[in-house]
Formats: sequence, structure tokens, C-alpha cells
Amino acid sequence: MATPAPSQPALDEFLSEVRAAVGAQGWSDDPGVLGPHLVDWRGLFRGRTLLLVRPRTTEEVARVVGACARARVPIVPQGGNTGLVGGATPSADGHSILLNLSRLNRVRAVDPLNDTMAVEAGCILADVQKAAAAADRLFPLSLAAEGSCQIGGNLSTNAGGIAVLRYGNARALTLGLEVVLADGRVWDGLRALRKDNTGYDLMQMFIGAEGTLGVITAAVLKLFPRPRETVTALAAVAGLDAAVRLLARLRGQIGDRIASFELMSRFGIDLALRHGLGVVDPLAQRYEDYVLVEIADAASEGGLRARLEQSLAQAMEEGVVRDATIAESETQARRLWHLREAIVEGQRLEGASIKHDIAVPTSRVPAFIARARGLVEAASPGVRVHAFGHLGDGNIHFNLTIPLGMSEDEYRAKEPLLTRIVHDAAADFAGSISAEHGVGQLRREEIKRYKSPLELDLMRRVKAALDPDNIMNPGKVV
Amino acid sequence: MATPAPSQPALDEFLSEVRAAVGAQGWSDDPGVLGPHLVDWRGLFRGRTLLLVRPRTTEEVARVVGACARARVPIVPQGGNTGLVGGATPSADGHSILLNLSRLNRVRAVDPLNDTMAVEAGCILADVQKAAAAADRLFPLSLAAEGSCQIGGNLSTNAGGIAVLRYGNARALTLGLEVVLADGRVWDGLRALRKDNTGYDLMQMFIGAEGTLGVITAAVLKLFPRPRETVTALAAVAGLDAAVRLLARLRGQIGDRIASFELMSRFGIDLALRHGLGVVDPLAQRYEDYVLVEIADAASEGGLRARLEQSLAQAMEEGVVRDATIAESETQARRLWHLREAIVEGQRLEGASIKHDIAVPTSRVPAFIARARGLVEAASPGVRVHAFGHLGDGNIHFNLTIPLGMSEDEYRAKEPLLTRIVHDAAADFAGSISAEHGVGQLRREEIKRYKSPLELDLMRRVKAALDPDNIMNPGKVV
Repeated sequence: MATPAPSQPALDEFLSEVRAAVGAQGWSDDPGVLGPHLVDWRGLFRGRTLLLVRPRTTEEVARVVGACARARVPIVPQGGNTGLVGGATPSADGHSILLNLSRLNRVRAVDPLNDTMAVEAGCILADVQKAAAAADRLFPLSLAAEGSCQIGGNLSTNAGGIAVLRYGNARALTLGLEVVLADGRVWDGLRALRKDNTGYDLMQMFIGAEGTLGVITAAVLKLFPRPRETVTALAAVAGLDAAVRLLARLRGQIGDRIASFELMSRFGIDLALRHGLGVVDPLAQRYEDYVLVEIADAASEGGLRARLEQSLAQAMEEGVVRDATIAESETQARRLWHLREAIVEGQRLEGASIKHDIAVPTSRVPAFIARARGLVEAASPGVRVHAFGHLGDGNIHFNLTIPLGMSEDEYRAKEPLLTRIVHDAAADFAGSISAEHGVGQLRREEIKRYKSPLELDLMRRVKAALDPDNIMNPGKVV
Repeated sequence: MATPAPSQPALDEFLSEVRAAVGAQGWSDDPGVLGPHLVDWRGLFRGRTLLLVRPRTTEEVARVVGACARARVPIVPQGGNTGLVGGATPSADGHSILLNLSRLNRVRAVDPLNDTMAVEAGCILADVQKAAAAADRLFPLSLAAEGSCQIGGNLSTNAGGIAVLRYGNARALTLGLEVVLADGRVWDGLRALRKDNTGYDLMQMFIGAEGTLGVITAAVLKLFPRPRETVTALAAVAGLDAAVRLLARLRGQIGDRIASFELMSRFGIDLALRHGLGVVDPLAQRYEDYVLVEIADAASEGGLRARLEQSLAQAMEEGVVRDATIAESETQARRLWHLREAIVEGQRLEGASIKHDIAVPTSRVPAFIARARGLVEAASPGVRVHAFGHLGDGNIHFNLTIPLGMSEDEYRAKEPLLTRIVHDAAADFAGSISAEHGVGQLRREEIKRYKSPLELDLMRRVKAALDPDNIMNPGKVV
């Protein structure tokens, strides 16, 4: 996948062209400036680059990509650089242009009567949410990195997050795209239509493609009514099967107002408690399995809390729920969500962790966790399973915390084996080995094990059709 | 696009192979049997075929397509044959195989705890709805042809219908596909996952491709909680701007429980009244513009009706709504929906109609209708605009009823001009000339006027990547 370096005079000419395309403020080769852009968020991947460019307009992006296309120089698009699979980190050969979208960050339009907004790729997700709120609308995509990740990256990775159960992934929130293609041409697919059946839905190819088919420069996003009433609850459930049954009960009784349905375990809560993260055990007794439920409604007649209370009470009578608490105030709700965040931070503080981002059909989550737990515990005695996450979407972060007393080197040596076991188990349940994090560099070889040769062939055909010279983020995904 | 006929011996051998692939019950060349399959639902297109085949399994489909691929014989996939653009009608040269999916019609699995079901392409939409209901779930796709259209056709045309506002198009209801590719290989993309970011989302290419990239043989569909409470209302609004404002108000106050928001006009209601379709004028006085609203909730606490009443009362105080009626019973609700259907039947009985399936941003619908109305009335004095449909999605069936006293021949002669005017107006509002009906044969030339050369180039590249020999439904879409 490495590209041969061009000759020095040709390279100088090319770099002059690229610098001219973005202007004096639009590029840098200062190592101090480049540094944070050359390593991924988890520090797993490091790369080098010919030049960091930060175009301010779509036209500037097009000029940069056009120059790269003519010179056959690879381009690595980068948003907020918060990805977890090295998708935005250039390769180590240093032959590529790093195209950072941060300065392409205008909100182009908000249309409350169409429930849409048009934004540029470099808009930070939290700013997109705020612009929607300023128009009395909700943009529901929400995830841990929302204060620094950018919407272009969210779309390029088809981001998930905590409201997928209700609103879908980033793909489901998108109506139109503007994309700079691999040859530098600009495709204006910025439609703001809820229905358009005039041919292939090309937009879909670029969403989730991690910049390997083109550079997303702008998007039309769907907006929703703002919730006026939100109710948050934590329930201890009688096992994982009970958790799935509770979800079905709540969906039947409360419908799509269920925005989040997050699984937590005793082990996770203990991690949060042990590392002094300002949490207390949330219920009077200790239980093994918990779900954090959030329901929200555009209306605000106050009936939501009573309805949830009633559903949980019925579930307790049936033995599905063992105990539960419903937040009485926003402060209490924030405390419950803080617990959900603290289990992740507690895991980090506890030591090395081997992470997996699995999805299986929601109905199969209990069987998957049981099977994978048994296998990893047998393969590495003492390994501590930390399975938590978006149960409502069937998306479990099946993480493995280092056995007590084991050195990190020894544990890391087991990573390939343990990951293989977990991914094979996911495959046995017709699952995904990367539910929301994408492929990038981290899972590029891994997906070849789980996708059929036919599917890989189809992916390569799509890649060849849209980026025949393989200059768009080479070495990622396919 | 016509394919040269193979030599007779080669053709005989090929046909033997195809007949053998599907068995004695799986094919016909009887003109009486073939007849209804060779003409589209509106009678706009007629074709011929080498052979009608009706495979019962995916493997049989694969064998037929494989034989066609080797012999370079075109394949025309056909579901319930209810399409409106000739997408399932073979060409007149008679050189293609007509692949009808009706016998591939099993419900493979229903998983209520995952809110999914796996169905084969030939399942009739109403049967899919029933299978979901039998598991106490809702499959929300609903459209006029649901008693005979098939889910494979619905997915291949990314069908819309009356619940898009709440649930999205067919694309949004699909999690996985099984597809027989143009070379006869079977792609098993039958995932039942709500999250999977392991590469390009290939499924998206086949949805809405009208069978030009492969044959959809099965799908995993999303299910939803069944509504326990449904409220239907009809409101006379103070013009089209008021209709759009009413939608925003209801979305803000009632949220996503609004399943349908349908526009009707005085002219449409008069057509229904005039032709004795068992309807009465729905309100005490006559008004120009009406919306039919349906809201539905998984819960059944009886609060929905009161909430809608209150919202409509507020809208009346503000002059947005002039009068309204809320159905007091299921019978009354059915009567309101019957009116919505009767305006279409009334239009048919009134005489020739030139039909358009337009989408624009919902916020622009009033301006679009005003502009297009002015232009067509100027171009053809006496033409009667019948604009109605899915206002909640920005999808307006902008139909033109023949001027009184004009002959049909004279009117049909004006069709190209009038359609040009309407489509140009849609384009001026960044709209679509085929919101939910697709391209097929009817709009294939027309889309070239409205899509950029770049977009057409991208579509052709996708086509060439997946069907390099152009045997999948040639002459449709691209």
C-alpha cells in the first residue's frame, strides 16, 4: 500500500501547488503543529505527512485533492481526530497529505420548517447540537467525544453513540452530502429531501467509508422536535435475559420514546467505586446487572415518569427487575449518567484493557456474553470481563481488564488470542466486530477473516469505481 | 440498449438450462400466463420476454441469473408488478428473461426481542405486515398497493407511502439483504444488526436500484412497537403556509407520534363528491386546503386525543386552522382515510390526468405549488391543478386534470410541455422529480436533465462496478 516518493523537483512543485491552494494560513509543516495530528486518540498509531493542510472552503479542498490526484499523492482526511481505529492517522511513510477539515466549519443554513440544517464537515458535533437547539430543534447524535469530534468525521465513520435506539446512526440522520471526489471534482448531493428516488443513492456510499472514497465537505442533517420531558432511571435486572425482556416491555408500553438503554455490570460499578470517581452504589443492595434507561418526549405533560414507574413496578412484580430508582431531578439524572461514564474511566484506571466493539442481535446479547465470557476466562484465567454499553442496539463493549497481578506486557501478548476468541464468538452469533468504531487501520486485516471473499470483492469494486488510483486514505478499510 | 438475439441452437440450450434451474412448475411461455406480466400497472409500457421464470428459492434465482450471465441474456426482475414507471416491464425486443419473485415468499424468521423479521422478496407487503402483527409488532411500510405489491419490489424501489414522516422510506426499515449478483453469486448480507461499521454498507446500493445492480431475494426488516392508540383528524387550514406551520406546531407539541400529514384540496374533495364515491363534505363549510393528520402511540393512556384537540384549538385561535374534526371512532377515522383515497379515484373518473411525483423541502412546498400552478395555468389555460399528498415529507403529487371540454388527444399532446414546466419548477426548489415512484423507463431520460453530468457519471460507475455486462434490468434507471 506504500506509495513511491515522487522526485524532489516534482515534489517541490506539487507542494507549492498545494500550499497555494489553501493560502498562507492554510498549511503547516511545523513539527510542533503537526505533532498531535500524527497520532491517533488512543496512541495506537503514529504517522508522518508531507504537509498538513487546513482548507477553509470546499473549493480549497477540491484544489488540494485535484493536485494530489494529478501527482498521485495520497490524502488522509482528518476531523477532530477522536477516532479509535487509526482511520485519520497517516501512514508512517510520510508520503501523504494530511487534510484537516477543522477550518471548514460554518453552519450554512438551518431550516426549522423542513427540520434540516446544512453544516460543513469541520463543525464540532457539540456546535451542531447547539445550532439545532437555537432553532428549537434537536440534533440527536451524541457521543463521548462530542466536544471535539467533527460532523464530517461522524458521517465518515457512521457514528453511533447513546441515542441510536431512538434516532439511528449518523447515516439515518443525513439527507444530503457534498463530497470532493478522488479526482478533485465536487459532487453536490446537498439535498434536503425526505424522499428522492431518482437513481442510486450515492450519498450512502460515502457515509461510513472513512474517507476512502472521497472527502465529505458538507452535509444536510435531519432535525427533530426537542424533548420537553426527560426521565432517567436505573434498574437492577435479574440477569441479562431479564434486561432484554425489560427492553421489549418498555418498547411495548412506552414506544420509541426510549432514547437510551445502557447495560452496566457490578464489575463496572465496582471499578468506578474503587477509583474514587465520585459515585456511590446506586441502589440499597448490590446487584450483578443494571440498565440505565432514558426516555424523552417532545410533549411535556408530566405523564412520562408515571408511565415508566408503572412499567418498572410491573417488571418488579414479575421478577424481571429487582430494584430501581427514577431520577427525581436533573441533578439525579446527571448522577446516573455520570455513573455510566465513570465505569469507563474506572476501567482505564484499573489497568490495561483489551477492548472490543461488538454488535449482535439484541435478542442474542445474553448468549453472546455468556459464551464469550466462558471462552476468555478459560483462555486467560483471571481475566476480568467488563461487558457494558448500548444494549438497546445490541452493541456491547466487551472489554477485558487485565488479571490482577499480571504484567501489562504479558497481558498484551495475549491480546491477539483473546480478540480472536471474542470476534469469533461475535461471528458465531451473526454479529459485527466493529459496531460503531469503524475499521481504519486497527481492524483492516481483521475484517478479512469475517467477511466473505464475495463481500470483500464487492467492497474493492466500489473502491475501484470511485477511487481508481487509490489515493483516498489508502491503507484504511479496504 | 437492445441486446442482439443469440443463435437459435445457443438459445435453445440456454432456455433448457433456465427451465431446468426452476423445474416444471417454475416457468411459463404460455401467452395467457405471460400477458399480465408484460404490461405495467398503468398500461404505459408493454414488453415481450423469452421466458417467464418463477423460482422458489434463492438457489434457483442464482442458477437462472448465472445462466443469463454466461449467455449474456438480460434479466428483468419483477415483484407484484404494481410499479408506476415501467421498471418491471421487459423491453419490446423480447430478448430478456422475466424473473418473477412471487413464489419466493416465505417469512424466514421473526425475532420480536430483536424487533426484526427476515422475509423473502416475494412476500406480499400486507402479509409482511400481518406476520409482524402476529408477533405483536408493527412493520410500518404502508401504501395503496400493499395487497399485491411485494417486499422485494418495495425495497428495490425504496418505497415511500403514508408513514414516511414517522418511520422513513423502505431503506430506513431495512437492516440486511440477500442479493443474487449479476454474475449469479449470492451475497449474504442478511444481518439483523442495528450497528455494523465494518466497511462499505453495500446493502444501500441495492435498495432503490430497481433491480439494475442485482436481484434482492430476501431482507431483514426492522419492526416497531404496535400503536395502541391512534387518533385521526382532518383540519381545514388557512392556506398552504398555514399547513406547514401546523405541521411544525404538532411536531413540537406531539413529537414523532405524527405518523401521517396528508394534504388535500378543495378541488380533490369536489372530485370525490362529484363522482359519487360515498364521501360527504367533511366540515360544515367549504375550505380550500385541508390536512389529514394521524398520530399514533405505543402506549394507550388516552391522552393523545386531548393533546391533539388542544394543539388544534390553539392553531384555530391563531388563525392557522379554520375548522377541524377529530374522528370519534374507528369508523369515523376510516371515513377520513376513505376521503383521502377517494380524491385519487375521483381524479381518475374526472378524465385524463398528467401525474407528477415531486418532493421539495417541506418548508418550500407552498412556494413550489404556487409557482408551478401559475406556470401550468399560463401554459395550458383551463388545466386543473390537483396537488395533494404527503406534505409531511415534502412529497406532493402535483397532478394536472384535463381542462373541461378538451379532448384527451389534445391534452396528451401537451404532456411533455407541462411535465417539463413542473419538473423545472421542482428543480428550482432543489427538489426531486420522482420522490417515491422511482425512475424505471418512464423517467430515465428525464433524470438526465436534472442530474449533473458528474452524478450521472458516478451512477454509471456504480452500475459498471456491479453489473459490468449490463444484464440486470437494462434500459432502466441508468
